[in-house]
Amino acid sequence: MRDQHPLLPYKEYEKVGLEVREDLDGRALWIIFNRPTKMNSLSWPLTTALQEICDALMLNRRIRVVIFAGNGRNFSAGLDFESKDTDVTDVPATSRYFGQRNYSLTVQKVKSLSQMTIALVHGSTVGVGFAISCACDVRIAGTSFRCSIGANRMGLSGGEGGLSWMLPRLIGTTHSNELLATHRWMDSQKALRTNLVSDVVSEAELRNTGLALAKDMLAMTASGLLYTKQLILLNQNGVTLQGTFAAEDATQMAGAAEPEVLDVMRGFQSTITKGRSKI
Amino acid sequence: MRDQHPLLPYKEYEKVGLEVREDLDGRALWIIFNRPTKMNSLSWPLTTALQEICDALMLNRRIRVVIFAGNGRNFSAGLDFESKDTDVTDVPATSRYFGQRNYSLTVQKVKSLSQMTIALVHGSTVGVGFAISCACDVRIAGTSFRCSIGANRMGLSGGEGGLSWMLPRLIGTTHSNELLATHRWMDSQKALRTNLVSDVVSEAELRNTGLALAKDMLAMTASGLLYTKQLILLNQNGVTLQGTFAAEDATQMAGAAEPEVLDVMRGFQSTITKGRSKI
Amino acid sequence: MRDQHPLLPYKEYEKVGLEVREDLDGRALWIIFNRPTKMNSLSWPLTTALQEICDALMLNRRIRVVIFAGNGRNFSAGLDFESKDTDVTDVPATSRYFGQRNYSLTVQKVKSLSQMTIALVHGSTVGVGFAISCACDVRIAGTSFRCSIGANRMGLSGGEGGLSWMLPRLIGTTHSNELLATHRWMDSQKALRTNLVSDVVSEAELRNTGLALAKDMLAMTASGLLYTKQLILLNQNGVTLQGTFAAEDATQMAGAAEPEVLDVMRGFQSTITKGRSKI
Repeated sequence: MRDQHPLLPYKEYEKVGLEVREDLDGRALWIIFNRPTKMNSLSWPLTTALQEICDALMLNRRIRVVIFAGNGRNFSAGLDFESKDTDVTDVPATSRYFGQRNYSLTVQKVKSLSQMTIALVHGSTVGVGFAISCACDVRIAGTSFRCSIGANRMGLSGGEGGLSWMLPRLIGTTHSNELLATHRWMDSQKALRTNLVSDVVSEAELRNTGLALAKDMLAMTASGLLYTKQLILLNQNGVTLQGTFAAEDATQMAGAAEPEVLDVMRGFQSTITKGRSKI
Repeated sequence: MRDQHPLLPYKEYEKVGLEVREDLDGRALWIIFNRPTKMNSLSWPLTTALQEICDALMLNRRIRVVIFAGNGRNFSAGLDFESKDTDVTDVPATSRYFGQRNYSLTVQKVKSLSQMTIALVHGSTVGVGFAISCACDVRIAGTSFRCSIGANRMGLSGGEGGLSWMLPRLIGTTHSNELLATHRWMDSQKALRTNLVSDVVSEAELRNTGLALAKDMLAMTASGLLYTKQLILLNQNGVTLQGTFAAEDATQMAGAAEPEVLDVMRGFQSTITKGRSKI
Repeated sequence: MRDQHPLLPYKEYEKVGLEVREDLDGRALWIIFNRPTKMNSLSWPLTTALQEICDALMLNRRIRVVIFAGNGRNFSAGLDFESKDTDVTDVPATSRYFGQRNYSLTVQKVKSLSQMTIALVHGSTVGVGFAISCACDVRIAGTSFRCSIGANRMGLSGGEGGLSWMLPRLIGTTHSNELLATHRWMDSQKALRTNLVSDVVSEAELRNTGLALAKDMLAMTASGLLYTKQLILLNQNGVTLQGTFAAEDATQMAGAAEPEVLDVMRGFQSTITKGRSKI
């Protein structure tokens, strides 16, 4: 069925520098930038592959959590400027515009995934790499993490890949404005203070900390996690509280029609009633 | 007059587990969850009573601040699952939907109050209890405070009672997403760091700290406090800055027509002029 | 050309208590409140002058960063109540409304500037002074900084000068509600914790810290900084992420058409390619 966008054999993605593999009984998917000698910069073929994976995941019911990470010294340093495809100066304006669209479309597809998404960030995290991490639902940082905008080092505006929209929502306008309008870096401690990341751990612990969060997400029912993600996406735009109440109430009805949910409910109701009665 | 929704004698609310009493010369109202042997879980009759109180408060001019708190070991553990009325599994879908609406309507009515609202939270604060605390204007926590979503433990989505709307606005999207999509708890120190609560104090100091804040709110004029609350409600939705300027300017005009405000203004103007001249 | 609103000779502004001077090769402009014996309170003529300066700056291409500061012990204590023009009690309602509009219009013009704006705040920062600092893109505080609303001390609502719109976006709703509905002060340490200010430094270092930030902003290309500011303004209202992607992509195209940007791009592309290859 066309709509299901089957994932390629994961081996195929190795060619473009993506390590893709399943974990936690096939319910979590790792997408790992694997071009360590290029600081995990993203070539055009890599972004195309990443978009394909996102398309395939949209209707995938088995995989419920996606974890992004980087092999080597950092998460991702942004676009690959060695690649002819990403040359930004010697191409006609229309081509350049579609190059730009390709960049923002990649971020948009990560942001729209049906799965909960976790970014494990460490080392230099810049440009499209930074934007992809911001498009994830939760970020956990290694101590070596530092982020900056990237595009503004090239003489362009700091707003790119949705960063001018995402950053004020993640870290407030004061710090966001400072990042967008300078070449400054934000380190892991400041990222923690400003709530950009949920936690800072050593690089050695980073993957296990991410996996523990994925496990905790998988403790939700399949429909519970799916609907939670949809409500997170709904609330990123300017919906009113009244609108959210309507969406939440209908969502819980939809959930309560699932046999899996009904089982959990009955168990929960019995346990909690006993627990509270004991007090 | 029907519109004024007179409050019942406060004694009447004791039957459903609500301790309701006035303070600070009748200008503040305590609404205290008082079912300590049930972890202050909320039965259907309790939520009905709470909605009645909110309706009655909407046009009440005397009471200007409402303080929510819990007797015993915690603020509120959420819905009461022992009560037949809150059975969530063995009822027809339509009934279940109205059960859901009853829950969200309770939160909505707390959020819409004309009064400034303070939640004094301690111990386990879960589900509808957590949502009610988030619907208040300011939260102060006892050190024992810990919150979690609740609904997702029952297999449902984490978005319930407006939490998927309120949490990202209160604590930013990173921490909000983590809470909504897991069963994790957030403790009082993290609640302080993420600005969920304004302050953390010992349980022994909690009520007095709340009362001190209520007193500071009552130092405003009646109309000043009322209009401030309306501007807070206006700004929770997607109004533009231009729109807020229009609302604020008209609001100050309305305020300045009040004899009480004019008196304060004249006193203030005279004091500050003298004060600054002395420098 | 009328549209260019030429700035008056800066000397002219001294009469109303504004020290206006250029810095960093004429690319930065200091606007310094200079009425230290009046706690830098703002008279009607001062706000009129400030609006004129903002109008003139809107299409000024040379000046790219504006730094607000206060001479003496504080940034600004708000409106000048000694001035007959700002009398708020003994005037007809229509005049009072235009007085109110004059206040909010001043803040609105600062907020809408084409330049990046920095507020260096110290000492008591109240009312319109506080609102102007909040309308800037980044705030840096001296240790003596403390802010409060002001209008609510006069019996009016706490929402004035856009503060009911700006504060929840800057410091989250919990702390914002507490400030708006009381006469409480927030000090520099709490301002740092709540992300109201980007940094806290000693008063002796305040101007140099602001200048260092201005220099880092000027390291951007002229068009890069200009477009970044426009994207910051776009994102302050309820634009969708999809809308921001469209605006960002077009913005980068516009930037890439500038000769200055193309030069930076070519240099950057060559440097980074060499740099990454070395690893």
